[in-house]
Amino acid sequence: VQTIAIDTILADKGQHRHFMAKEIHEQPSVIARALGAWISEDRTRVSCAAEAIDWRAVPRLTIVACGTAHYASHVAKVWIERVARLPVEIEIASEFRYREPPLPRGGVTMVVSQSGETADSLAALRYAKAMGQTTLGLVNVTTSTIAREADVALPIHAGPEIGVASTKAFTAMVLCLSALAVMIARQRGVIDAAGERARLDLLSTVPRLMAETIALEPQIEALAREISEAGDALFLGRGLMYPLALEGALKLKEITYMHAEGYAAGEIKHGPIALVDETTPVIALAPHDALFDKLASNMREVIGRKGRVAMIGDADACAEMSGEVWRSVTLPRADPLVAPFLYAVAVQFIAYHAALAKGTDVDQPRNLAKSVTVE
Amino acid sequence: VQTIAIDTILADKGQHRHFMAKEIHEQPSVIARALGAWISEDRTRVSCAAEAIDWRAVPRLTIVACGTAHYASHVAKVWIERVARLPVEIEIASEFRYREPPLPRGGVTMVVSQSGETADSLAALRYAKAMGQTTLGLVNVTTSTIAREADVALPIHAGPEIGVASTKAFTAMVLCLSALAVMIARQRGVIDAAGERARLDLLSTVPRLMAETIALEPQIEALAREISEAGDALFLGRGLMYPLALEGALKLKEITYMHAEGYAAGEIKHGPIALVDETTPVIALAPHDALFDKLASNMREVIGRKGRVAMIGDADACAEMSGEVWRSVTLPRADPLVAPFLYAVAVQFIAYHAALAKGTDVDQPRNLAKSVTVE
Repeated sequence: VQTIAIDTILADKGQHRHFMAKEIHEQPSVIARALGAWISEDRTRVSCAAEAIDWRAVPRLTIVACGTAHYASHVAKVWIERVARLPVEIEIASEFRYREPPLPRGGVTMVVSQSGETADSLAALRYAKAMGQTTLGLVNVTTSTIAREADVALPIHAGPEIGVASTKAFTAMVLCLSALAVMIARQRGVIDAAGERARLDLLSTVPRLMAETIALEPQIEALAREISEAGDALFLGRGLMYPLALEGALKLKEITYMHAEGYAAGEIKHGPIALVDETTPVIALAPHDALFDKLASNMREVIGRKGRVAMIGDADACAEMSGEVWRSVTLPRADPLVAPFLYAVAVQFIAYHAALAKGTDVDQPRNLAKSVTVE
Repeated sequence: VQTIAIDTILADKGQHRHFMAKEIHEQPSVIARALGAWISEDRTRVSCAAEAIDWRAVPRLTIVACGTAHYASHVAKVWIERVARLPVEIEIASEFRYREPPLPRGGVTMVVSQSGETADSLAALRYAKAMGQTTLGLVNVTTSTIAREADVALPIHAGPEIGVASTKAFTAMVLCLSALAVMIARQRGVIDAAGERARLDLLSTVPRLMAETIALEPQIEALAREISEAGDALFLGRGLMYPLALEGALKLKEITYMHAEGYAAGEIKHGPIALVDETTPVIALAPHDALFDKLASNMREVIGRKGRVAMIGDADACAEMSGEVWRSVTLPRADPLVAPFLYAVAVQFIAYHAALAKGTDVDQPRNLAKSVTVE
């Protein structure tokens, strides 16, 4: 038990009212540090222990995690399939371990856990090892059981995270998983050295663009205060923004106790749109990417049913929906590889400021523990 | 447009107040008919058009669907992996089609859709065909586009479903997918002829046990009335009961407009348990199966935080939690292959009677259409 370390951190809360605020604000430096640790000194290639695996021979990657780490893994699935053309399956650890699924010969199973002690994730790791899978453990705490037991331990370098609602660990996981996707793509010959450098150049813009997003805190706070007056909320996204919608809803649940739910936007017509009326805010994560037109039509369906759409988008997206949506916040323009980091900050601030408005305990929400070491 | 057919059905609502009630009640006969159509005349083996595929050579089955059909597919994933040891991936159609994921050579992609016209599911089918996958279409409407375009069309034989909230189509899908799992297991040599017969004998008990569950309507109605007084609700389950929890939450959303959410029970400690207080009913789907002890500890976590657990279980499960839970309803004992059908009836009745108590339009809920033929 590292009491001294925690005391040092307590002093470090500094000008912030809560650890969660501190941890949101330190994300640009956390991401810069994690990126520095995951790339070569000349900044031209990804460099990590997972390079030792022959990814050309891997038929499939299975990623197992819980909660926030599961949503980070969901972002990774999109990237690894898209950039590296390697099929990825993501699993909830508590389901995976008891389902005992068939795993492909020569497959790799990665467990993602901030603490490295999550009971269900650890059990999943042990099941995968017993099934002959090569195992990776992506963790924040490098002395943890998962780090020790995985064949390859991959640190996310987020530093100690004290707030129960994970923020910087989530974005650090997404950063490391994005780098992993690039490395696997290079090894599998899907991208060349120039392609790898181009993607690392994009990732190196994340700290600056996250800082620009953090500077939008007052606008997001104003929106969050309005959202906090509702009884519940929906978060919608497509593609990379679908797991961000899930993460945004989870954050809001965790610290405001509002019933928020994340949905793949294309699914709302199959049921959840019945919830929509003039009282429920629908938060749409809407960068102007290839899926924007489809999301815009989902937003219009909600608006057509008198729903209040709060849109988080970039300038192009917000311009297109201006005059239609209830509220909008304009984030910096960003490549799809970068966007998840910015929208993560936005949904973190929504939850944080909604919780402040409600007066709940941000760092120690009721009923929750920081790491879930029992089943 | 088959106006005449619909008129005939309108007359057929008979003694029921709503099509949804009629369709819930007719499930035992629907399942019996579907089973009859999916097994050989001597009732010893599954007999369906999907037998033409050499399942020993199939590396992976991808199932793509929306809404309720997606949850039915989730039940199928558990069965096909467990019984046939064939890896299955389930995908939301609106995500799958735009993500354009890598699909395994020699793989099979199955699309599940009641109407056979769901726009996103049809697009997913076309993508899979273009990627060289063998395609299956599991549909209710055999004259539909998906039935025509799939390499192999598989009818669920549910008969016309009029209520917007799907009931008998869901259980008919689960029945057909369970039979498919048995057929694939036999073809792959995981079970022998005796094993196949034993499983068909179990499936043949479904109509009787569903009828016994339907006879519990008054008890479930009493619970549903109490649930309808809450603002929102959580549904929890593990394993096969996780998709049933998702389906239960969807039904409640669709026709009562209550914000209900389904969760894998092991995930609640990673966030959603923060929602729990004395006002939110937590509906636990709790047969006394191999996962019961884990679910019982999740129920106790909820109870320990003053949550109101409404337990749907069998006699053993209810006896074990008696005196601890807020409410319980005891369903017939059933093999895991049979249980999903009974718990489906229970969650359908919860939604139906909660909607009656609230006075919402059961058959034509606001904002929803029966089949989603636009994106």
